[in-house]
Amino acid sequence: MKLSTLVGQRLKEAPNGASLKSHILLLRAGYIKQVATGIFTLLPPAQRVSLKIQKIIREEMDALGGQEVLFPVVMPRELWEMSGRYTSIKNEMVRFKDRTGHDMVLGMTHEEAAVFMAMNTVQSHEQLPFMVYQLQTKFRDEPRSRGGLIRVREFTMKDAYSFHATQEDLDTFYQKAYEAYKRIYKRIGFKNFTVVEGDNGMMGGKVSHEYMAVTDAGEDRLVICPKCGYSSNMEVAVSVKDENDHVSGGELKEIFTGNAHTIEEVCAFLETDAKHTVKAVCYQTSDEKLVVAFLRGDYEVNETKLQKIAQSELYPVDVEKFGLCAGNIGCLNLNLPEGSVVAYDKTIEGLENFVTGANKKDFHLVHASASRDLHGVNFVDIANVKEGDTCVHCGEKLTFTRGIEIGNIFQLGTKYTKSMGFKVTMPDGTTKEPIMGCYGIGVGRSLASVIEEKADDKGLVWPMTIAPWHVHFCPLRLDDENVRAFATEIYKEMTAAGIEVLYDDRNLSAGIKLTDSELMGLPIRVVLSPKTLQEQQVEVTMRESGEKIFIPIKDLISELKAIVQDEIEQIENA
Amino acid sequence: MKLSTLVGQRLKEAPNGASLKSHILLLRAGYIKQVATGIFTLLPPAQRVSLKIQKIIREEMDALGGQEVLFPVVMPRELWEMSGRYTSIKNEMVRFKDRTGHDMVLGMTHEEAAVFMAMNTVQSHEQLPFMVYQLQTKFRDEPRSRGGLIRVREFTMKDAYSFHATQEDLDTFYQKAYEAYKRIYKRIGFKNFTVVEGDNGMMGGKVSHEYMAVTDAGEDRLVICPKCGYSSNMEVAVSVKDENDHVSGGELKEIFTGNAHTIEEVCAFLETDAKHTVKAVCYQTSDEKLVVAFLRGDYEVNETKLQKIAQSELYPVDVEKFGLCAGNIGCLNLNLPEGSVVAYDKTIEGLENFVTGANKKDFHLVHASASRDLHGVNFVDIANVKEGDTCVHCGEKLTFTRGIEIGNIFQLGTKYTKSMGFKVTMPDGTTKEPIMGCYGIGVGRSLASVIEEKADDKGLVWPMTIAPWHVHFCPLRLDDENVRAFATEIYKEMTAAGIEVLYDDRNLSAGIKLTDSELMGLPIRVVLSPKTLQEQQVEVTMRESGEKIFIPIKDLISELKAIVQDEIEQIENA
Repeated sequence: MKLSTLVGQRLKEAPNGASLKSHILLLRAGYIKQVATGIFTLLPPAQRVSLKIQKIIREEMDALGGQEVLFPVVMPRELWEMSGRYTSIKNEMVRFKDRTGHDMVLGMTHEEAAVFMAMNTVQSHEQLPFMVYQLQTKFRDEPRSRGGLIRVREFTMKDAYSFHATQEDLDTFYQKAYEAYKRIYKRIGFKNFTVVEGDNGMMGGKVSHEYMAVTDAGEDRLVICPKCGYSSNMEVAVSVKDENDHVSGGELKEIFTGNAHTIEEVCAFLETDAKHTVKAVCYQTSDEKLVVAFLRGDYEVNETKLQKIAQSELYPVDVEKFGLCAGNIGCLNLNLPEGSVVAYDKTIEGLENFVTGANKKDFHLVHASASRDLHGVNFVDIANVKEGDTCVHCGEKLTFTRGIEIGNIFQLGTKYTKSMGFKVTMPDGTTKEPIMGCYGIGVGRSLASVIEEKADDKGLVWPMTIAPWHVHFCPLRLDDENVRAFATEIYKEMTAAGIEVLYDDRNLSAGIKLTDSELMGLPIRVVLSPKTLQEQQVEVTMRESGEKIFIPIKDLISELKAIVQDEIEQIENA
Repeated sequence: MKLSTLVGQRLKEAPNGASLKSHILLLRAGYIKQVATGIFTLLPPAQRVSLKIQKIIREEMDALGGQEVLFPVVMPRELWEMSGRYTSIKNEMVRFKDRTGHDMVLGMTHEEAAVFMAMNTVQSHEQLPFMVYQLQTKFRDEPRSRGGLIRVREFTMKDAYSFHATQEDLDTFYQKAYEAYKRIYKRIGFKNFTVVEGDNGMMGGKVSHEYMAVTDAGEDRLVICPKCGYSSNMEVAVSVKDENDHVSGGELKEIFTGNAHTIEEVCAFLETDAKHTVKAVCYQTSDEKLVVAFLRGDYEVNETKLQKIAQSELYPVDVEKFGLCAGNIGCLNLNLPEGSVVAYDKTIEGLENFVTGANKKDFHLVHASASRDLHGVNFVDIANVKEGDTCVHCGEKLTFTRGIEIGNIFQLGTKYTKSMGFKVTMPDGTTKEPIMGCYGIGVGRSLASVIEEKADDKGLVWPMTIAPWHVHFCPLRLDDENVRAFATEIYKEMTAAGIEVLYDDRNLSAGIKLTDSELMGLPIRVVLSPKTLQEQQVEVTMRESGEKIFIPIKDLISELKAIVQDEIEQIENA
């Protein structure tokens, strides 16, 4: 490929609105162009990376015995009604009417399509297990698209669905998929990724894992035990909570606290610590019921856990509308409208001598006691893990990190096969719903996350396995006839030898050409100049390590092939 | 791949509602499953064929210097307003509002996206020419989806867009693309396809070609000159019309014709021939203006040509609403509401002594004369070619055939670059809009059209180049321990040798297994049975020719490889 006619433009400056490294560099290096919020065109270099990632994914899916299929992007309402998700999924899913007035949706995921495909066509346990997968465009009307390809509305996804006769069989396959995913990320070139327990969210089912690219740019908070290996998304992380002194205090008493409303203000006013308080965090459900969560003042509420209890997404609320005193809500003597959801976190269990709102304007209660004052309460886990908490498995102190979710796998159970009525005959003649697993990878997000891991201040840095081209051929002084003749010849030879090469055939200054090559991030740069030509050699620089060697022109092709091969093997066997 | 766990089901009977051969066989052989009208899931064998077709297309696009990109499926209204197509395309294009109320569309085609991508990123003529292409899902809300994958609403398409500084450069590239397309269809395995002049339709521009799989199942009527090679879609075909006797008759006279309204009825009543009449065909435009087309009674109106004159799509009309007498409309003394469109076909030019409606209930005019009675008329071509017409190029009689459009290429000119304001600087310092070409192939329709050409009454017949697997390995009597052991071993060896094999590992009757293999259509069938095993050989049958040979088991792998290789070469070098 000649750089002169490669579509795309290298930019010096970070474009407006881009703050994540991968977003900035993909724009600056001419890899993507935004078409609308969360919607991008992949320019040729990005599409080449995407296709290489897809190839790795296909190989690993095929190795698992996967069968590639293609489900539709546009599906009829009826299919989603069979599973109940036509109504349970809100406006993340695009809906429209076709020309005949029929309700259609854009597929966010394809559990329904997979079950529908298998219904009638798979009838006996003898046809199980099987796994189908596809690589396809998905559209999710994300409210918070951000960071270039990190969080988009339209993206290429590999999604796979497996069907099993028994839970044991799913467990066995799930474990294989778990390992295949690790191979995929390794082969893509990730060095720093981890697997955590995840939230099943809209998918249903119980067991799930998330593959996380570990990076400060990640939106997800991860809880890791450095000793036993426990790792979890904060959304579902558990811990032994920081112990409190359960020393009972005096008599329950109302105290005027005036304008002290937040936990910080109340603690300052009463000269106590947040861990001696119980705070309220309030939301409303999608059908506008009040949700009140009580937890110890030094913990944060975990919305994912609370959503499960409220069985609804949570939205901000104006508590006054429900007759509550904002800033003075407490867990005793609470008077709530019918239908409200109240949850008490386990951090309150056994708590003595604490402060909480008096449910009366400008007043708090002091010397409250869970055992004495709180009756008939079922304590649940609705708090985030806090730094300083200890691992439930080994007692080590938990550490935090951040990650980008680049894939996930789920055990779905029979949620879809049951709701859609898909059964197979079993060896004993009975019929039974197959047990499902599903397995997703966002291709574009993986591409962007590799950049977050590897790129440096000069630009992109591609692992050899997914680089758009392996070699950036950068002859300097193309106005020199001799250089141009040799460059043309070398490019021809590289192409003939099947080397993936981007040839900077532009007659521009060394500064521009070398800077562009660093920005674009191909693994190997080959520089030919009047000086190197005099010595019948080229200068070869490795983008990642900066290592520089000189290679005689006559050996160039075979040396390049060897370098590419070595590098790929190193990554794949890491 | 083992057939026992291959997703999909072989059916004996043609399913309801399928009438086209390809539709019936794709359903019966377990290749596709319908999800909604014009929307299908591709099961593993069909997706394998589709990927092989895509690979051929990619290779040919890359050989043209094409750069693969990925445009979005979902695009914002603004992009389509830049070209004016947001309003000019009607309800074939899906529109919806996203969660923020923004108007979005599903891409039917990507001229706008291609120009938008190039704007700002391509600034100089030095960056031209270039061609970008993508393989992507398209959704068109077709009113008449039919025939399985032949006419669908959702499909995988290769679309390409080229940009040029001069018309000459486009001409050169267009010719190369024209040849590349022929290679693509040849490599896919078509033997019977043709290229015809096409209609530019909603794309704009002037020059275009359609690649047609020639088959009676085709919706398109093709006009072919067997002598000079002229070939055209009926929509735009031209001919020297069948001559008429231009002998002038008597005085113009009104005659009572009563209930005789159609040309046949009027001719019977007046004892004359259709070629001595001028008929009216009426429509209305999308904004409900009347359109009247006059042409000689023995010709059919060509709606594509008439639409261009009316500059609107055409819809059925109730002529009485416009004050006309249905069945008595004639080209003389016509009184039409303002804004109506009238077109006179060239078949009327110089016509003498003809019958036409009197524009008066129950009356026709006789002895009408174009030269005497029709003044100030601009005769245009709005008639279909008729059998018996002669070629405008060589005078030979034209023949008709039918075809399925499997691809098209267009010279778009500057329609999109002008309307969207995309300019590059030229060598002389001026700026100019690049000239565009676009190039489309429907992958699924190509797949289905090959079936229309090749399948027989036993089932599918795949060309080796795109067959889902090359070999259908069909051991009989798997209950025989010896057969099973050898079969397992042979399958293992085939797989290890990289032979694409579908292994029918089911313990079923020979009848079912052989019938299934014919239905599924893989090019080579290998049968192992107790009898052939006794002779240490297998029976190898070629699906297309029916040719049958016996091959010693020890030579099987190398022989199969040779057959596959030969067959692919034969197709590619045909």
